[in-house]
Amino acid sequence: MNTVSLIKKKRDGKNLTDDEIKFLIDSYTKKEIPDYQFSAFLMAGYLKGLSKKETSSLTNAMLYSGKVIDLSEIEGMKVDKHSTGGVGDKTSLILAPIVAAADVNVPMISGRGLGHSGGTLDKLETIPGFKTNLSLTQYKKVIKECGAVLIGQTKDIAPADKLIYSLRDVTATVESIPFITGSIMSKKLAEGIDGLVLDVKTGSGAFMKSLKEAKELADSLITTAKSFNKKVIAFITDMNQPLGNYIGNWLEVYESIKVLQGENVKDLNEVTFNLSGAMIYLGGKAKSINEGIEISKDIVKSGKAFEKFLQIVELQNGNTFFIKNPDKYPKAKYSETISSNFTGYLEKVDNYQIGMAALELGAGRKTKEDKIDPSAGIIFKIKIGDKVNKGQEIAEIYSDKKSSIDIVKKMISDAVVYSHKKVKPVKLIKLIIR
Amino acid sequence: MNTVSLIKKKRDGKNLTDDEIKFLIDSYTKKEIPDYQFSAFLMAGYLKGLSKKETSSLTNAMLYSGKVIDLSEIEGMKVDKHSTGGVGDKTSLILAPIVAAADVNVPMISGRGLGHSGGTLDKLETIPGFKTNLSLTQYKKVIKECGAVLIGQTKDIAPADKLIYSLRDVTATVESIPFITGSIMSKKLAEGIDGLVLDVKTGSGAFMKSLKEAKELADSLITTAKSFNKKVIAFITDMNQPLGNYIGNWLEVYESIKVLQGENVKDLNEVTFNLSGAMIYLGGKAKSINEGIEISKDIVKSGKAFEKFLQIVELQNGNTFFIKNPDKYPKAKYSETISSNFTGYLEKVDNYQIGMAALELGAGRKTKEDKIDPSAGIIFKIKIGDKVNKGQEIAEIYSDKKSSIDIVKKMISDAVVYSHKKVKPVKLIKLIIR
Repeated sequence: MNTVSLIKKKRDGKNLTDDEIKFLIDSYTKKEIPDYQFSAFLMAGYLKGLSKKETSSLTNAMLYSGKVIDLSEIEGMKVDKHSTGGVGDKTSLILAPIVAAADVNVPMISGRGLGHSGGTLDKLETIPGFKTNLSLTQYKKVIKECGAVLIGQTKDIAPADKLIYSLRDVTATVESIPFITGSIMSKKLAEGIDGLVLDVKTGSGAFMKSLKEAKELADSLITTAKSFNKKVIAFITDMNQPLGNYIGNWLEVYESIKVLQGENVKDLNEVTFNLSGAMIYLGGKAKSINEGIEISKDIVKSGKAFEKFLQIVELQNGNTFFIKNPDKYPKAKYSETISSNFTGYLEKVDNYQIGMAALELGAGRKTKEDKIDPSAGIIFKIKIGDKVNKGQEIAEIYSDKKSSIDIVKKMISDAVVYSHKKVKPVKLIKLIIR
Repeated sequence: MNTVSLIKKKRDGKNLTDDEIKFLIDSYTKKEIPDYQFSAFLMAGYLKGLSKKETSSLTNAMLYSGKVIDLSEIEGMKVDKHSTGGVGDKTSLILAPIVAAADVNVPMISGRGLGHSGGTLDKLETIPGFKTNLSLTQYKKVIKECGAVLIGQTKDIAPADKLIYSLRDVTATVESIPFITGSIMSKKLAEGIDGLVLDVKTGSGAFMKSLKEAKELADSLITTAKSFNKKVIAFITDMNQPLGNYIGNWLEVYESIKVLQGENVKDLNEVTFNLSGAMIYLGGKAKSINEGIEISKDIVKSGKAFEKFLQIVELQNGNTFFIKNPDKYPKAKYSETISSNFTGYLEKVDNYQIGMAALELGAGRKTKEDKIDPSAGIIFKIKIGDKVNKGQEIAEIYSDKKSSIDIVKKMISDAVVYSHKKVKPVKLIKLIIR
């Protein structure tokens, strides 16, 4: 097969065959196709699109560029959740123990924070001793023992994805639904799952800003998952403001502990229970998503969810002291409160700016080499539609970097828009697609 | 400036500013932008197009990536011709001496054969001793002394073009009118010309297969030339069959000598005199193209054109023995005649295949390292519309490679299509655009 003629074929808007896509991905992964040819292919694919069949072929080629984990030795269904990322999105930490406690296995391979959005691994690693880089044997052992495991991507899992993502990142070919689909699904399918619940975020703090884009991505993910005979449900959920109130790595673990212990954080609980409900349903332990939601609530109420979380932490080498005593976790050196300069209703949040503000405080990385500050972050106390009075505290910020405090105060004040008129609260679950 | 955001801008179909294009070209030429980013830009530009202004900016940036020759010390107008290439296209060899003899300077920088199409340099180098790699000082000296010079591209001239072309070649981004325009015009503008005549070929032996594509390219070249305040006329001429009868390097010099000595090769003379006529007109030595054509014919008839050719050859270190005695040039080892298997009219020629047949005989290069066989080639004796009888000789072929003879016999026989019905001869000059 000739690389130039394959690039030309895609450039001219024609569909590549399964073999042709496999050739491109395999050869690129083996470094037999140079970056400059693959980036021309990426741009052609970005602009001309990939069909559903091509997207499935791409996913398949990326999936089999590495190891596909076989979990058949573990009894019961294995169901994971994937979120496209956002601000304050800590649902994984809460739903994994809930679903595991409902006797559905959750073999979860997660990522790190990217830009304005947080990452499950970074959050878990604020727990002293918590290991996210388990071997495959340890990975299976933890699932067997407690029904859930949360690790990071290993080198063996879909190596093509890492290579292709790095190239997309520097060639303006990131925001492509087929390539995003291949990237997400190749990693998820490698986990050895039977079912997958997708949380496609939409809004100012999401990668997909519009509902239309989010729906397109959800459709593409669903079609691809189904072409691999996986059970799948996609939620499109709101990301126009932080989910819950806590943003930042330990701060999000903290809020998760509170929810696992029964506290009601309205928006966070609603999204989390919908997702866990769907996972329990796909795992065959509920007859509907709604029954799954009720089971989730009961599991939290009974204390089993928190117990399961402690068990996961212990099995992954984490120290449970701060899980049991979250208020004793070391505080950031500097903190400050931010107040409203307006009396009215919260109308709009530039949620991307809120994410970037958390990053500025030390909760994310500006460069790959940056270290995360576990205690840095924001407690964002108001929701769209809330009545706010002038002088009312709207946020607390935490950082070890004094210089960031004033920058972030301005960022947050600039990120909120108030209105004199009443504003409707946001609809959290925009769509459920199966 | 940020490379990724510039790629993104073009990807999204927006126009880049002059400075942005300059940044991309300059940085790429200095190796500050890696190939993989530039190829993503090329594919975005290929698919989204470049505006006229962007094409002019591209040309300007490519032009000033190297040396721009200043010929102001040389009296009189300097006018060149550029052809997009074809089969048997030897007009440069004939028109350069004609136009120089009409007191218009012709500072011509030419290329080598590419695929099925021949190159002026390869043809000239079949003349023993002929030097095409003159220094800038020698280049100016030859124009001063005889009014014409024919050399190859130096490393100093538009180095960005060589780099970009090599990358386009392997990333399926060759057939793009803006990038072709930048490539052609940056080299031509570097010559220090006042005017340019363009010969955009169209048909089965041309790079632009359709008249529509040829017209688009001609329009783009004209707009760009005018944006640099150059006088310009474009001809769109037929390339559905070889121009003249001789194809191959020395064979084309041979036919050029014959025309310069007064022989009438109908199609070759018509195209050549139109081009030389336009050059003489742009050089201010005729009041119209038609007057330029008449002057051209007179110059040939008077013997001045052939004299000028001898002078150019001498000044560029060539031995004039074979120019004066062309029939004494060494013949290829093997030759064969090809006859018609049909009685009727020549309807169609796959002219690309004729060019590839000449390449197969040794007149072109299959790889960059191949050496040209000066005597190899084809004398193609019939024209579209000609009455042909079964058994009539339609071509002679020449090669030093015995193995090529049979291959090429078949290639040529397969490349001609006859008809029982009368066929109209081809219109040579399709359009003149200014």
